[in-house]
Amino acid sequence: MKTLQDPLRIARICAVLLIAIAATLSRAHSRADSNAENAAGQGGSKGDSKPNVMIVLVDDMGLMDTSVPFLIDKDGAAVEHPLNRWYRTPNMERLAKRGVRLSEFYAMSVCSPSRISLMSGQNSARHRTTTWINPDSNNRGPSGPPDWNWKGLDASSVTLARLMQQAGYRTIHVGKGHFGPRDSIGSDPRNLGFDINVGGSSIGQPGSYYGTKSFGAEVPKPTHAVPGLDEYHGQEIFLTEALTREAIKHVQESVRQEKPFFLNFAHYAVHAPFQADARFPTEDPTGKFSKQALAFASLVQGMDDSLGKMLDCFDELGIAENTLVFFLGDNGSDAPLGEPHAVASSAPLRGKKGSHYEGGMRVPFIAAWAQTSKQNPWQKRLPIPQGQIRKGWGAIYDLFPTIAELVQLEIPSGHIVDGSSLKTIFASSEPVLLDREFLMHFPHAPHRSNYFTVFRQGDWKLIYHYLPEKSSPQMQLFDLSKDPYEQTDLAETRPKERDNLLIRMREKLIEQRSLYPVDQDGQAIEPTRGIDFQSVLPFPSTP
Amino acid sequence: MKTLQDPLRIARICAVLLIAIAATLSRAHSRADSNAENAAGQGGSKGDSKPNVMIVLVDDMGLMDTSVPFLIDKDGAAVEHPLNRWYRTPNMERLAKRGVRLSEFYAMSVCSPSRISLMSGQNSARHRTTTWINPDSNNRGPSGPPDWNWKGLDASSVTLARLMQQAGYRTIHVGKGHFGPRDSIGSDPRNLGFDINVGGSSIGQPGSYYGTKSFGAEVPKPTHAVPGLDEYHGQEIFLTEALTREAIKHVQESVRQEKPFFLNFAHYAVHAPFQADARFPTEDPTGKFSKQALAFASLVQGMDDSLGKMLDCFDELGIAENTLVFFLGDNGSDAPLGEPHAVASSAPLRGKKGSHYEGGMRVPFIAAWAQTSKQNPWQKRLPIPQGQIRKGWGAIYDLFPTIAELVQLEIPSGHIVDGSSLKTIFASSEPVLLDREFLMHFPHAPHRSNYFTVFRQGDWKLIYHYLPEKSSPQMQLFDLSKDPYEQTDLAETRPKERDNLLIRMREKLIEQRSLYPVDQDGQAIEPTRGIDFQSVLPFPSTP
Repeated sequence: MKTLQDPLRIARICAVLLIAIAATLSRAHSRADSNAENAAGQGGSKGDSKPNVMIVLVDDMGLMDTSVPFLIDKDGAAVEHPLNRWYRTPNMERLAKRGVRLSEFYAMSVCSPSRISLMSGQNSARHRTTTWINPDSNNRGPSGPPDWNWKGLDASSVTLARLMQQAGYRTIHVGKGHFGPRDSIGSDPRNLGFDINVGGSSIGQPGSYYGTKSFGAEVPKPTHAVPGLDEYHGQEIFLTEALTREAIKHVQESVRQEKPFFLNFAHYAVHAPFQADARFPTEDPTGKFSKQALAFASLVQGMDDSLGKMLDCFDELGIAENTLVFFLGDNGSDAPLGEPHAVASSAPLRGKKGSHYEGGMRVPFIAAWAQTSKQNPWQKRLPIPQGQIRKGWGAIYDLFPTIAELVQLEIPSGHIVDGSSLKTIFASSEPVLLDREFLMHFPHAPHRSNYFTVFRQGDWKLIYHYLPEKSSPQMQLFDLSKDPYEQTDLAETRPKERDNLLIRMREKLIEQRSLYPVDQDGQAIEPTRGIDFQSVLPFPSTP
Repeated sequence: MKTLQDPLRIARICAVLLIAIAATLSRAHSRADSNAENAAGQGGSKGDSKPNVMIVLVDDMGLMDTSVPFLIDKDGAAVEHPLNRWYRTPNMERLAKRGVRLSEFYAMSVCSPSRISLMSGQNSARHRTTTWINPDSNNRGPSGPPDWNWKGLDASSVTLARLMQQAGYRTIHVGKGHFGPRDSIGSDPRNLGFDINVGGSSIGQPGSYYGTKSFGAEVPKPTHAVPGLDEYHGQEIFLTEALTREAIKHVQESVRQEKPFFLNFAHYAVHAPFQADARFPTEDPTGKFSKQALAFASLVQGMDDSLGKMLDCFDELGIAENTLVFFLGDNGSDAPLGEPHAVASSAPLRGKKGSHYEGGMRVPFIAAWAQTSKQNPWQKRLPIPQGQIRKGWGAIYDLFPTIAELVQLEIPSGHIVDGSSLKTIFASSEPVLLDREFLMHFPHAPHRSNYFTVFRQGDWKLIYHYLPEKSSPQMQLFDLSKDPYEQTDLAETRPKERDNLLIRMREKLIEQRSLYPVDQDGQAIEPTRGIDFQSVLPFPSTP
């Protein structure tokens, strides 16, 4: 019995070993299952195994920062505007020819809210990351809600990446993260369901786009160094290109492993700093554009070049027909072309990133199968017409349910999804969902617009300004069907419509458990219910 | 090495043993912790260890089924009405003298919704068990919402019992359960956080109150046998008394174990069948009362006798000053005294159990420390005055946060609590929370009232009837400050108040993610927003 003289210790070792063995067996088993599933198709991610999904999320790219027209006339035909003639995005044109674009697609007005909406399927009012996440200090603002979600996503968050990972996908994050503050769990995409992370961290912009500057790593305090690209440091390579090479490498590896991939390609471009991408020198015969604006245009073109290389890669690997592409911006344009509330950077739309006008939150959106195929079973499940443009609305939180529906993700009960699948809008040539509602809630300051809620219902748009420093709020009302560029405020002349929207806006805010700006005593400033109504009953507080 | 010739098998055995050892050690450890905590006080559950909590939940007992007056005059003084002189509840009088009662306390209009609200702290609109649970078939009704929560609570539900259990309480359920359908997880209170269950199952009423009938177990199909009382079968004992003896036995055992107890004493009385409790023969000199009504009165008195025995038991065990008692009904009165919508069974209140009038959902409520003590630290944390009555509102979902606040329960994040602590109302002699709101949502049929929502704000009360079979809804509006017995419908004459309440009612329904009755196509029938508003904008559907 000598060998058992310390039975407890042996048992302990045995138990640890056993747990390890069991875990290994279980992993091997599930891998075998997933391989079997893949092998059932034409092999790997090429055939009718699960479809690959690539999301291209372009930072600070607004609706007009492209040669692809997204605005339409009253017959639903695309209309080219001057800015469409200024920017050069031939690969977006190529993608648009292969798929469908939405003329009215909303993101949040700033960055982190949009990114978390994409990952969660929730409006920012619900997930409560209602402004961008300053990596180093809580930036709720002087009257912002104390309980807003500065921490962003964490290891227990339900994310699209995690659900895709659980569904057998190889999940790849390339580019900007900005899901949580510095050193938080959420700052590393690998804690949010991504198997691979290249370049993602708490930062919202790169220290530098230049490889020769090691993307910001070679300064005394490299707070905005892009992580994970050490092999490119010191080289003559632009950040957009380095990320593209990494993305292609990981796509190739997925194909080699015969696993479907979910690639979240979140460009740092075209966010400031506006450093020129020298591969795409922009000429301005008019001499009207600033050096910054020229650099911005080159960032756009460099990003577009990356899109082309991704599409080429899918073609070359023979996976294009089994690869679904979503291309979109994360908030309104930040093009350095004029005042934030003017018709300028997103002309003819009014406003830019951060503002409460359409230019603050309308973004380009293209959905396409990288190569159309009538036979592919996944394309049969989500048909996407070629070269079409749709008036039907969409919003960034719709990607989650659209993808979840296609690949049948199991969404945990209790996780509320605000979006809905875009399948119907893609399929129908008639405008659909025009009675839909869009809520954009920004209870913070300082930014280009402060403490506001935007609520759109049909073509009516209400903007509610909380003005915590004053005794009463202000409202703006626009009829986008007649006034798409928000020039004529109807708040005073159409009080019934205004109050109707106000009442419904309150319902939506309540439904999403929104947090409000606070007054000097820290009490939430709920939106009023309209002038008439206020005078009848005292405005109630929720018990 | 002979002993290790089958190392995997040995390892397996070792692992099993180890897990068992670890579990035992962990249990012993936590018991030691909890003993240490108890010993810090005067020992056991007698001193300043955690306070014992008893909830007495009386089935189908309305506000007027007692000799204790709950209605008040305009100065806030209790007023005796004829029914108070008819029923005899000396032990409720005794408890009322020791504590505080609320004149306006709401439960849900039927049974299971109230029970789950008590356990979850949520309004039934949110937990979605919006009608009683038929044990054997889904009773949503012809136009009821398909996704209503017929299944009730389950093993993953956050319940008051489970949180108390986790906080070191010995958790005891005695009496009616009705938390889930037959053979469901939730049908056994032990799956919901109760250590002990006597008498609780899926049934909503006893097969028989008589021990000589084995409480319903001795019929060919004993669908409504009360479980767990076999030792009383065949004896001359009334169900109320048998349950009381069991409750006392478990309280005594808790004291012996020096563990605080949480006792959910949920009487089957005074629910139908109206079988006389022969210990309390009721005399009716007027000859006006039916045999059923006489039996009902004896059920009330038998329940009251049980309350007295529990209070005696606490006194005798010396734990009264450390024992908090909540006494309440689970819905409006079911006294067999007249038509459901008349001023009859709850006179002078209109309506009875199941109806949309006050008599349908107002219940007696008394909170008391079983013995007042100025020294007891828990009584300092939750002071309850003696012999007082309060106009301040309460509702059944307020017990959860009141108890949670007192004993500092850790409520899991993500679990929404609709109630709020009653501490302030207990403490203040002025009416408080009069701007509070109460929502009672019943999207089912057939019952005494069908497909309705009641919404009270301050003293205004709106009743919304969905009428799924007709093209438009109906509304009733009452000003309870002037018309507490709901005789004058103001819906036509006060349209502004009506529409104000309607709009706020919608907000509350939306906030609680309520489910609505459905039309013939299965589409939810949301409440309209009022006549004026409807004509301005098409009523939107939630995306």
